[in-house]
Amino acid sequence: MTKSQTLMEAYNGTAYPLIGHGKRNAQVLKEAFANVEDSLSSDMYGSGRVIERYQERMAKLLGKEAAVFFPSGTMAQQIALRIWSDEKGSKKIAYHPLSHLEIHEEDGLKELHHLEPLLLADENRPVLLRDLHGLPGDVSAVLLELPQREIGGQLPEYGELEAMSAYCRQRGIKLHLDGARLFEVLPYYGKSAAEVCALFDSVYISVYKGIGGIAGAVLAGEKSFTKQSKVWKRRHGGDLISLYPYIVAADYYMDQRLQRMEQYYRDAVELAGYYRACGALHVRPEVPVSNMFHVHSDLEKAQLESAFIRVADETGVGLCSTVREHKAGGVYFEVSMGDRYADAPKAKLEEAFRLLKECLEDETGGK
Amino acid sequence: MTKSQTLMEAYNGTAYPLIGHGKRNAQVLKEAFANVEDSLSSDMYGSGRVIERYQERMAKLLGKEAAVFFPSGTMAQQIALRIWSDEKGSKKIAYHPLSHLEIHEEDGLKELHHLEPLLLADENRPVLLRDLHGLPGDVSAVLLELPQREIGGQLPEYGELEAMSAYCRQRGIKLHLDGARLFEVLPYYGKSAAEVCALFDSVYISVYKGIGGIAGAVLAGEKSFTKQSKVWKRRHGGDLISLYPYIVAADYYMDQRLQRMEQYYRDAVELAGYYRACGALHVRPEVPVSNMFHVHSDLEKAQLESAFIRVADETGVGLCSTVREHKAGGVYFEVSMGDRYADAPKAKLEEAFRLLKECLEDETGGK
Repeated sequence: MTKSQTLMEAYNGTAYPLIGHGKRNAQVLKEAFANVEDSLSSDMYGSGRVIERYQERMAKLLGKEAAVFFPSGTMAQQIALRIWSDEKGSKKIAYHPLSHLEIHEEDGLKELHHLEPLLLADENRPVLLRDLHGLPGDVSAVLLELPQREIGGQLPEYGELEAMSAYCRQRGIKLHLDGARLFEVLPYYGKSAAEVCALFDSVYISVYKGIGGIAGAVLAGEKSFTKQSKVWKRRHGGDLISLYPYIVAADYYMDQRLQRMEQYYRDAVELAGYYRACGALHVRPEVPVSNMFHVHSDLEKAQLESAFIRVADETGVGLCSTVREHKAGGVYFEVSMGDRYADAPKAKLEEAFRLLKECLEDETGGK
Repeated sequence: MTKSQTLMEAYNGTAYPLIGHGKRNAQVLKEAFANVEDSLSSDMYGSGRVIERYQERMAKLLGKEAAVFFPSGTMAQQIALRIWSDEKGSKKIAYHPLSHLEIHEEDGLKELHHLEPLLLADENRPVLLRDLHGLPGDVSAVLLELPQREIGGQLPEYGELEAMSAYCRQRGIKLHLDGARLFEVLPYYGKSAAEVCALFDSVYISVYKGIGGIAGAVLAGEKSFTKQSKVWKRRHGGDLISLYPYIVAADYYMDQRLQRMEQYYRDAVELAGYYRACGALHVRPEVPVSNMFHVHSDLEKAQLESAFIRVADETGVGLCSTVREHKAGGVYFEVSMGDRYADAPKAKLEEAFRLLKECLEDETGGK
């Protein structure tokens, strides 16, 4: 048994890392292209069979008139909100305080598009109908993220979602879906992608979260919307001569993984149960509603890391690779389920959690 | 012998297509990855060995402190000009009337960055020192494209370039290089990439023109500049989780093709000579100064197309796949040299041009 120095090293050295689908490496690309003919023509600046066929597949799956492949969700979502803003002639849009656009994009939405976001809801819960009641009438669009990633992947109940959709429609406010993890919430909602998307005027989905592609995103809506989005895609520098490396991979891994989303969700529920049974850890949401959840603790970062390193080194189970500190104090880590979880034998998992519990009890003095 | 219906079909059916490196298809990616280990880790949002090593290679090659890999040149160049504009506090920048930014980007520079381009020079020639003399003092940056693609790949003489660089430095105007085809002009200038780049404050190069990669661009300059460019890259939605499919291909094809730029240039000079010897065609520039040139004609589009189709069908030599119409009247086509030209036997070439000349004489009534 080697003693690992850092949590990341320990995690990477385990026989049973539990998070996601596997390492992000060249094998992901090579597997996706293994059965692709050499003669498959590249897309050319948004045209060509490889991109058009995939876009048609996605439009159908999402129940929208048309879909456009983008290099990133950052680009796709800024553009969606910009189109709705221009259409209404108002810079005001609204989203959750922990939206990707607010905290991970260096304020691209403000710096490039001069949009003015209104922040909805308490940052510890998802947006609800009552948050929309206070919006001024000249808001162009509301963005809802399903599930809300930064708070562990929480969701509004489906009836609440329908009510928000109806509310926005009545008031001429466009509703945009940040569906980075849309497919991952469908088993909990018990709905098809098209059913959920029907509540929204525009929809973004990611091809490298639950689907596990290399990079890329899809933006879908009516043709008048997607047509404008292509103009903005070119303006942003996203209309690459060739996007096929991402498209072929997205197509390939969708075939494998869309059907596994139910399993990932059930696995998350199971694994969250193990964590709930440990003292000193709090799972959020308590019972997952997608393939992901967060685990919070009042322990020190170093204490939690050393517990995970010991579990990794002694049992070969990688529970977590990164512990983060909250601004407000305390620490947390994210768990998202993919193909890997199925590889870990139940007995190994139980051994790992017995040891984790023991380590945490040592740290907290058995409290 | 089959009779082709369209010029593109005829060109694609030839044994000896003369343009570029070959078809843009999945083989390009598969060849680049054939000897890449499965375990090669993806870059992650601009970090990681695969992107950092390539950026270091490019910084060194271009003689700059640092380099950043971008998904597209459209994105990289808008960002370069924005940074210089912010630094000087002036929205005014200047470039050639047929700059890529002016005619191919749906006005992204204006729509996203609100920059105000001043158009330099007559659109039929490259920018010269005298064009800079009239610039207002509050211009932030001048962009020079070497070679100027839309006019057949024309270049200012090197002394003129040095004089423009000195002029801008003296006046506190940043000079940015649109070097989409920089490597392609080095044999004519007889300079290294670093020598040319030393005349500029910021430099963009493309990895899929002469280099023949899949997509992508590099932006280089001082560290204070590239650091800002990374913030804007994220804002644009260009900071993808994984850019390695493009980076690995760029690295692979640079190894092969940087050393062949001299050959591509000589081939262009040779092929232009064949065209000059045909009646009814005008080569621009008369003697190429890079791997590319344009051929203009006063014939009708259909006349030129039918001549090329006949040459393709009867000799197996693909001279041209697309004839374009000028707004001002007349037609032209672009020729850019790559690996393919070397595959065409000299006797075949001569046969093709004998037939082309004959066809054109028929069209022009032997005038």
